[in-house]
Amino acid sequence: MESLPATIPFVGPEALERMRGKPFELRMGANESAFGVSPLAAEAMCKAIERSAWYGDPEGYELREAVANLHGVAMDEVCLAGGIDELLGLTVRMLVEPGKPVVTSLGAYPTFNYHVEGYGAALHRVPYRDDHIDLQALADAAHQLKAKLVFLANPDNPMGTWHDADTVQAFIHALPSCTTLILDEAYTEFAPDAVHIPMDPNHPRVIRMRTFSKAHGMAGMRIGYAIAHRDLIVGYNKIRNHFGLTRVALAGALASLQDADFITQVASQVEAGRREYYALAEELGLASIPSATNFVAIDLGGSGGRARAALKALEDHGVFVRMPGVAPMDRCIRVTVGLPEERARFAEVFATVLKTL
Amino acid sequence: MESLPATIPFVGPEALERMRGKPFELRMGANESAFGVSPLAAEAMCKAIERSAWYGDPEGYELREAVANLHGVAMDEVCLAGGIDELLGLTVRMLVEPGKPVVTSLGAYPTFNYHVEGYGAALHRVPYRDDHIDLQALADAAHQLKAKLVFLANPDNPMGTWHDADTVQAFIHALPSCTTLILDEAYTEFAPDAVHIPMDPNHPRVIRMRTFSKAHGMAGMRIGYAIAHRDLIVGYNKIRNHFGLTRVALAGALASLQDADFITQVASQVEAGRREYYALAEELGLASIPSATNFVAIDLGGSGGRARAALKALEDHGVFVRMPGVAPMDRCIRVTVGLPEERARFAEVFATVLKTL
Repeated sequence: MESLPATIPFVGPEALERMRGKPFELRMGANESAFGVSPLAAEAMCKAIERSAWYGDPEGYELREAVANLHGVAMDEVCLAGGIDELLGLTVRMLVEPGKPVVTSLGAYPTFNYHVEGYGAALHRVPYRDDHIDLQALADAAHQLKAKLVFLANPDNPMGTWHDADTVQAFIHALPSCTTLILDEAYTEFAPDAVHIPMDPNHPRVIRMRTFSKAHGMAGMRIGYAIAHRDLIVGYNKIRNHFGLTRVALAGALASLQDADFITQVASQVEAGRREYYALAEELGLASIPSATNFVAIDLGGSGGRARAALKALEDHGVFVRMPGVAPMDRCIRVTVGLPEERARFAEVFATVLKTL
Repeated sequence: MESLPATIPFVGPEALERMRGKPFELRMGANESAFGVSPLAAEAMCKAIERSAWYGDPEGYELREAVANLHGVAMDEVCLAGGIDELLGLTVRMLVEPGKPVVTSLGAYPTFNYHVEGYGAALHRVPYRDDHIDLQALADAAHQLKAKLVFLANPDNPMGTWHDADTVQAFIHALPSCTTLILDEAYTEFAPDAVHIPMDPNHPRVIRMRTFSKAHGMAGMRIGYAIAHRDLIVGYNKIRNHFGLTRVALAGALASLQDADFITQVASQVEAGRREYYALAEELGLASIPSATNFVAIDLGGSGGRARAALKALEDHGVFVRMPGVAPMDRCIRVTVGLPEERARFAEVFATVLKTL
C-alpha cells in the first residue's frame, strides 16, 4: 500500500472550480449527459427518496430481472454495481493476483489502470493506431504476456472511435485461453448498429460492462452492470459490497430501462450534437475524430502543447473539457455534447480561444 | 477467489419476502430508522435528483468540511464512503496482507468477517462475556496474535450493549503497537453521553467509523465516513472508488448534519421505544438486554432453538426481525425500534407467537 502513488484517476470539475475560485459556465469534460434522465426515472427516484431510510435490495432482484430480460440472458448472468468504475475494481480483484500481467491501451481509461495498480498487478499498455484501439496489438500482447485480463472500451474513450462487431468478435477469438476480456460498453447507446455484439454469457472469458451514467443520464447516481458467464457472477458475489447500491439508483435505473424511447431520443440529440461539433471544427479549420459516443475529440494539431493551451484557455473562459493524456492523441481536446444552447456557447468561446493560441 | 465460500453477509428482507411470497407487514430486522430522514435532507435529496446526470464531487469537499467541523478535526482526517460496509472492506484491504491475523468478537458484525475472509486474512474471534464485547479478551488476542486489525462496535450490534468511553480508552492503550483498531460507532447517536469518546485523529492506529444509515435515516442512500490519522486517509485515497458516492447521498448527508434537532428527536423517540420493548419483555416474563442502539435484544431463554422458532413464527406473521448468530447470544431475538403504532402491533404479534412456542 505504501508503494502506491497518492494519485487519483481524475481531478473532478468541482476541485477545478475550487482552484479557480468560481464555477464553470459549461461542464463538457466528463461525458455526462446534458439531456438528463428519463421523466420516468426522475419520478421513480423522487418516490424512492421517501423510502431512503430502508436499505435497497442487496440482490437488486427487480433491476437484474429487467436487465436480463432486456439482453435475453439469465438473472444469474448479471451483476449490478456502482457503475463501471466499481466493476473494474471488482474484476481486477477477482481475476488478477499481484504481479500478474494485465493489458490495456496507452491512453485508455485511467480508472482501470488505477485499479490494476491498486491491486498490485502489472499493467502493460499498447499504443493506439490511427486514433483507434489497436486490437491486433492487444491480442499480441495478451499472448506474449499470458495476460490475465485485457481491457477494451468499444466505443473508445477518450477518442470516441469504435470497431465493428465482427472485428471485435474476431478479436475475442484471437485472445489466448488464459485471458479474460473486459468489454467496456459505457457509450454503446450512442454507437451505430454495426457496433452491437449479441450477448453471449456462455463465453467464460468475456465480461460486458454497461452503465446508466451516459445515455441514461444517471452519472450522479452510480449504477451499472456486468453481464458474464454465471461462474464469474458467482465470483463477483463472493466479494462485492452486497448492500452497496442506493435504493434511489436501483429505482431510477429500473424506470429508465422502461423508457427506451427516451434513450433513442437522447442518442439522436447526441448524434445531432456530434455533427455540429464536426462542422464547427471544419469551420475553424480543424480536424475532428468521428465519434460513436457522446463526445467528440477535436484535433488541434501539434504535439500536445496546443491542446493543453486550449484546455487552459477554455477553463479560463469557464469551459470545462478534458483531453487525452498521451501522444499522439493529446493533440486533441475531448468535448462532451451539450444542449444546443451550450454547444452554441462553446462554439463562440472556442473560436475566441483559438485566436489566442 | 475459488476457495472463498459463496456466502453473503446477510439475506436481505426482500429475498425473504420473495421466498415467502408476500411482503412483511413490519420490517424490524435491519435496524433501519422508522423515523426517516430530516425534512432538510429529504428536500436536499429531491433537489439533487434534478442534477443526477452529473457526477458527484469525488472529493466530497462540502460534506468532508461539515464532518470535520462537527468533530473538530481537519478535512484530511476524514474519508467518505458508501457506508461503514465499504469502509470495512477498504480498511482490510489497506492494512492486512493475506494470511495476517485479524481479531473480532464471535457473533459480531458479519460484514466485517466477510471482508476479512474476502481479502484472505486470518479471522480470529473471541467470545462475548455477559452479552458484552470482551475487551480484555480482544486485547489479549491482539497481543498473542500480533493482530493487524481489531474490530470493535461500540455500542455493539447485535446485542446493543456498550462500554463507557473510559473503558474503551483504556482498551485502546492496551492494544499492541502493531494493531489498528476499527471503532464502529454506527449507533453512537443513540448512546448515553458516557459512551462518547473525543476524536483524536493524532492517534495513528484508531479508525472511527460513522454512518448516516441509522439515526440520520439514510440506510438506503449508502453514505458514511471514517475519521483517522491523515496517513490512513492518504491510504484510503489510494484505493477508494473516487467517483463512488451518489450526488443525492452527498447532498442529503450534508443537509442532515445541519439538522441536529432532528437527530436529537429521533434519539429520544428511539429511547422511548427501547423502554417500551423492555416493558413488553417484562410483561411477557422475558428478560431484555439494556441497549444503547435503535434495537433491543429480547431474551427467549434456552439454547437458540426457542429464539429461532420465534423468528420463524414472527416471519409467518409478517414480522421481519433478526437474531444473533451464535451461542449464547442466540437465545435472543433482535428487534428494531419502530414507530409507536408498529411497536404496538409487534407487541400484539409477539405475544401471540410466544404462546405457540
